[in-house]
Amino acid sequence: MRDYVEIGIGREARRAYSLDDVSLVPTRRTRSSKDVDTTWHVDAYTFDSPILSHPTDALASPEFIIEMGKQGGLGVIDAEGLWGRCASLEDAIAEVTGTAQYPEEMNSRKAILEFEASKTRAVEVLQRLHAKPLDTDLLAERISQVRDSGVTVAVRVSPQNARELAPVVIAAGAELLFIQGNLVSAEHVQQGGEPLNLKEFVGSLEVPVIAGGVFDYSMATHLMRAGVAGVIVGAGEAASDSGVGVPLATAIADVAAARRDYLDETEGRFVHIVADVATYDDSELATALACGADAVMVGRLLAKAQEAAGGGSYWEPQAAHPRHPRGGVYVNFAETQYPLEVVLHGPSNDPWGGLNLVGGLRRTMAKCGYTNVKEFQKVQLTVRPSL
Amino acid sequence: MRDYVEIGIGREARRAYSLDDVSLVPTRRTRSSKDVDTTWHVDAYTFDSPILSHPTDALASPEFIIEMGKQGGLGVIDAEGLWGRCASLEDAIAEVTGTAQYPEEMNSRKAILEFEASKTRAVEVLQRLHAKPLDTDLLAERISQVRDSGVTVAVRVSPQNARELAPVVIAAGAELLFIQGNLVSAEHVQQGGEPLNLKEFVGSLEVPVIAGGVFDYSMATHLMRAGVAGVIVGAGEAASDSGVGVPLATAIADVAAARRDYLDETEGRFVHIVADVATYDDSELATALACGADAVMVGRLLAKAQEAAGGGSYWEPQAAHPRHPRGGVYVNFAETQYPLEVVLHGPSNDPWGGLNLVGGLRRTMAKCGYTNVKEFQKVQLTVRPSL
Amino acid sequence: MRDYVEIGIGREARRAYSLDDVSLVPTRRTRSSKDVDTTWHVDAYTFDSPILSHPTDALASPEFIIEMGKQGGLGVIDAEGLWGRCASLEDAIAEVTGTAQYPEEMNSRKAILEFEASKTRAVEVLQRLHAKPLDTDLLAERISQVRDSGVTVAVRVSPQNARELAPVVIAAGAELLFIQGNLVSAEHVQQGGEPLNLKEFVGSLEVPVIAGGVFDYSMATHLMRAGVAGVIVGAGEAASDSGVGVPLATAIADVAAARRDYLDETEGRFVHIVADVATYDDSELATALACGADAVMVGRLLAKAQEAAGGGSYWEPQAAHPRHPRGGVYVNFAETQYPLEVVLHGPSNDPWGGLNLVGGLRRTMAKCGYTNVKEFQKVQLTVRPSL
Amino acid sequence: MRDYVEIGIGREARRAYSLDDVSLVPTRRTRSSKDVDTTWHVDAYTFDSPILSHPTDALASPEFIIEMGKQGGLGVIDAEGLWGRCASLEDAIAEVTGTAQYPEEMNSRKAILEFEASKTRAVEVLQRLHAKPLDTDLLAERISQVRDSGVTVAVRVSPQNARELAPVVIAAGAELLFIQGNLVSAEHVQQGGEPLNLKEFVGSLEVPVIAGGVFDYSMATHLMRAGVAGVIVGAGEAASDSGVGVPLATAIADVAAARRDYLDETEGRFVHIVADVATYDDSELATALACGADAVMVGRLLAKAQEAAGGGSYWEPQAAHPRHPRGGVYVNFAETQYPLEVVLHGPSNDPWGGLNLVGGLRRTMAKCGYTNVKEFQKVQLTVRPSL
Repeated sequence: MRDYVEIGIGREARRAYSLDDVSLVPTRRTRSSKDVDTTWHVDAYTFDSPILSHPTDALASPEFIIEMGKQGGLGVIDAEGLWGRCASLEDAIAEVTGTAQYPEEMNSRKAILEFEASKTRAVEVLQRLHAKPLDTDLLAERISQVRDSGVTVAVRVSPQNARELAPVVIAAGAELLFIQGNLVSAEHVQQGGEPLNLKEFVGSLEVPVIAGGVFDYSMATHLMRAGVAGVIVGAGEAASDSGVGVPLATAIADVAAARRDYLDETEGRFVHIVADVATYDDSELATALACGADAVMVGRLLAKAQEAAGGGSYWEPQAAHPRHPRGGVYVNFAETQYPLEVVLHGPSNDPWGGLNLVGGLRRTMAKCGYTNVKEFQKVQLTVRPSL
Repeated sequence: MRDYVEIGIGREARRAYSLDDVSLVPTRRTRSSKDVDTTWHVDAYTFDSPILSHPTDALASPEFIIEMGKQGGLGVIDAEGLWGRCASLEDAIAEVTGTAQYPEEMNSRKAILEFEASKTRAVEVLQRLHAKPLDTDLLAERISQVRDSGVTVAVRVSPQNARELAPVVIAAGAELLFIQGNLVSAEHVQQGGEPLNLKEFVGSLEVPVIAGGVFDYSMATHLMRAGVAGVIVGAGEAASDSGVGVPLATAIADVAAARRDYLDETEGRFVHIVADVATYDDSELATALACGADAVMVGRLLAKAQEAAGGGSYWEPQAAHPRHPRGGVYVNFAETQYPLEVVLHGPSNDPWGGLNLVGGLRRTMAKCGYTNVKEFQKVQLTVRPSL
Repeated sequence: MRDYVEIGIGREARRAYSLDDVSLVPTRRTRSSKDVDTTWHVDAYTFDSPILSHPTDALASPEFIIEMGKQGGLGVIDAEGLWGRCASLEDAIAEVTGTAQYPEEMNSRKAILEFEASKTRAVEVLQRLHAKPLDTDLLAERISQVRDSGVTVAVRVSPQNARELAPVVIAAGAELLFIQGNLVSAEHVQQGGEPLNLKEFVGSLEVPVIAGGVFDYSMATHLMRAGVAGVIVGAGEAASDSGVGVPLATAIADVAAARRDYLDETEGRFVHIVADVATYDDSELATALACGADAVMVGRLLAKAQEAAGGGSYWEPQAAHPRHPRGGVYVNFAETQYPLEVVLHGPSNDPWGGLNLVGGLRRTMAKCGYTNVKEFQKVQLTVRPSL
Repeated sequence: MRDYVEIGIGREARRAYSLDDVSLVPTRRTRSSKDVDTTWHVDAYTFDSPILSHPTDALASPEFIIEMGKQGGLGVIDAEGLWGRCASLEDAIAEVTGTAQYPEEMNSRKAILEFEASKTRAVEVLQRLHAKPLDTDLLAERISQVRDSGVTVAVRVSPQNARELAPVVIAAGAELLFIQGNLVSAEHVQQGGEPLNLKEFVGSLEVPVIAGGVFDYSMATHLMRAGVAGVIVGAGEAASDSGVGVPLATAIADVAAARRDYLDETEGRFVHIVADVATYDDSELATALACGADAVMVGRLLAKAQEAAGGGSYWEPQAAHPRHPRGGVYVNFAETQYPLEVVLHGPSNDPWGGLNLVGGLRRTMAKCGYTNVKEFQKVQLTVRPSL
């Protein structure tokens, strides 16, 4: 059944599918959206909406993180971004987004070149800002302010800096720790360096850990055995342009299989799956859940929220990489902004599905005949390669 | 033979095909268009042209509905749209289409933003108009005016409101009742609510019922067993952007199989299949029939008719959904309008196939060697792109 | 091995491939272009270049037909187009192409609408010109003028009018008769009409007949058994937009199989295969031959010849259909024109392959290691669906 | 396992995959970029970066070739281009690139036509310059100047002129000889001409030979048996538009299989594989290595280097072919130029991956868990779209 082709003599490749290859087959029963329960929880924390924000400064103003929580979702703070490096977040963001104006006339070569150039200027600003020293006191102060608001606090650290930064952010109030890179492995191997023993490290923490991104059964199993509460599949915008990674419908289904096997192996330890998708298309939220995810981490889809830091611009942390920025920088692309509440729960006036993301997801689940995510993960699928 | 792939470990998906994946293989004999009979009938009603209009106010002026009938097709009235809510349909439509002008220069960002904004304004107008109370007397009066013209009267109600509205529209003269939502199930399940027992309901009506949209064998079988005269496969524009639904070539063929089995089960009760396609491409009319449909419901393809209410604009009812509008709104997209007679029967001066839809269908059937739909449903198919 | 999929329950479709899905695998030996022999022949007529022109008035000025012959190809005259209907071909063509100017600024909506409108005006002119009575004396006179030039004269008639027109055009000097419609069957069936018995008809003529277009083994076999000298696979521009027909790589290979079987059945009667492709891409010339064709009929690729009637415009006869024009009308699309000699044999200054079509074909054959078409038809293929 | 389909009756084709169909599956271990070793070597020559420049005058100024060597790569000089024909390379290049200005407003038809016309003028200039006699003294002098810089000198000759030019360029200092055409065979067959006996010829030379392009197992095996040190798979820009050639993921894997078998046959003679890709996408560098290549030859990706001769323009030698130019001419397409060091090794400010090509490759290898190319060639692959 698993589908391998020989792409050349003696060289096999597995056929893999992305989320937009997949459609959902409704069952015999439709349900009412009102009866749909999209609740998910990690440890003692419960969330009404299965939407997480990608840990990028382009989204994560304190207001945004707090509002995400109030709207039932989970906003994730990047501990290694601007929060701990810039006295004024507003000024820092303004410096990034002030580099470019979306041109009036895109067919003028001069305007296109200027627009292209402005994006590299934005990257340069990001690189410069990220090169500032990390002030852990400032970071801690900002995290604790969010904590004071009463919403669940989630903070992301990179695998490289997890050992150093986790104590800081946990002390400041982080209740969920995301150890998240474009790719996380059970063991990061570096010659001469001391690898992070993830199992030992996770075991030493007082807060649940969600780690990723991973792309396959084997890596996911390793994270689960290391004791994480959740596994992140995918790597947001970064996955789409590096040639590395498994298309997400396949990757999520593989990780869901790893979870089932781990559940059996441990006689009942259930690990959550978060799909970190890079999408403009709200239909992928449903297909990600249908393939096995419990919640979906999104980025650009939330950039039109008024509370988002970027004011209609978007980038992910790897765009600030000092030598090899990736993932694109979208400066001032979203002209009209809406309250995050409207983005997540409507009401929408956008007939193309860019608003009321959670409402749309509930409708899709209801139309397919399901009232909770666990059941919805059994919905029948069809595949067709998207052109 | 049925084709399943494992998209991830332990997760299967069925390969499915859309109408534009399919081409028709001509037989050894070509026929003359003149000899082609595209007649189809529901109960005692016979139609020369296998074309139905999607039940949207963007098409359904009274003139349009009457002309559809005169031209051998069937225009479907939306009982829950503007007909029962607005004293002047012309004014209401003008309010929608007046929100936007197709911009002169699409490459100006300002014009693009204004155009985008105008579409959300159009949605807001639709939402406001659809929020008006439904005046069933006004609705009934308008339906009876169409009835007076002598054409067959078909009216659509939603599954949610069928019980309440069906008696009204039937009393007003509806001869065919369409119970049509984006997705209709045999049983709509809502906690605390009382589900519509479709079988009982259909049995209680004096008029034939055509119900849908459905996407698979199982749901279609349920509708057939509920006693409907026809099943609608697909959901027009709504099917294309929600991630729910089976690509239509597969869905239609599955429903045609359900019909064959139901025919056997009932020793001869024949149920009609209507494919509700969202297409700009007249070739999909023929492929929909070739896959097993008896008639095709179209929307945007008819928006260029002079009799259409929207005057070159197009939307479907779900674009007026109060919290989650879907399916797109195309304001003033068709500059040139033609009499509906020309749109359906030519003569055409459009070498890209946008006019003379029925004539084109007859030619295709004749070229493939068939003179009626029943035989044409056996035409050999090829598919591409192959999965 | 033949590849069928079940697109829906109980409904099969064959996987089929188009010419641009196919690539050619070179052999161990490359050859010199100079050693490549692309000669093909029908009956006693030999042609150096395996290129025929589609029988459209957009190409076929007398100068163009004569030059095609002088350059080793074969120009085909449409007996049912303007040659027998218009006293001045130049004036008639000017009336068609004078309807439109390619707009300066395609992003202005006004210009786009005007351009669209101009194309329907062009169709209307074509329809009006084609509605003029056919003056067979005028047609005969023009054909005999071409005959006087010494080149081989090929004239196309439709299946419908073959019985009436064939004697006229043969008497006027046609040495090859093309019986060509979008689709030709062995037996055209019309209620009340008398079908053309192709076998009897072909047998009664003194000139070789090339007939088509066909799309499969069965239809091709019938034409062969009717005694044709050549079979046309495909239908030019018409095949691409009607949903009828088999993608050409598959269709050509099927017809080549029919030829092999017919060769066996008749102990040696060899029928030629002409592929009527609608392409802008010269690489499809080679792939058509590689799939089994002996020669390729092209249209738009030749429209940039200075000798072509349309002066850079292009359409095919079905664009003049009185009720259902198809196949597109491309008015003044090719700004720069080149002598037909340069289009066919170079030298080229176009690095995208639009000139030196025959030279390019010879190079491709040589690079693959073949020096004649018969051997080249064995070249190994790879397939990959084009996105 | 090898995957053949019957595209038509009795006609098979092999399913083949291109580099962008392929994604890489990371292993359980990620590595540090710093630990990645991309070294490769031919004979006694070692290169830190597995990047070669395509032998085109659009790149190969003497400064560019020298800087390629200094940056750890290998720049290849075309012995049959402008180096031996033009007293001033700068003037010659300026003549080519002076033919066109990238238009300010691409939507103006006049500007588009002028731009198109300018490209044919550029081809005409290239054709004229390439028609000048080859001054082997001038060529030798320029080669020896590069040699004086201390970098490894690689010079390309065509198969046709290899016998005549190889002694000249070797005497002038070429340390590696590239015998490279769009397609190289073990034996070029020409009627009346004397074919180059590659084995004898290669054996007679004092320098290692790298030859290609080839597309399959058989041709690669022949080159290996002729004694080459390296085989080139693919043909740069030329492969994409001629319809000849095997998609590169398949071709590279096939040639890697040929290498394994040849290694066995010779009990240990290892032949290098260079993939000559035409890509804008740096992710194909990694996938080419993953499919079996040791190094990648690129062209357009390097055109933004300040040292490149073309100053932001790009073409390959076949664009100067006297009768059949191919492969495109891109005049002044890259507005912003960067030092070659930045293009290859960063730091980058381009979040879409156009800079720091080697750094990006190292990161990809590290993320997949590999620290050298030999191991990386075992990375698991997925394919999509699946045929």
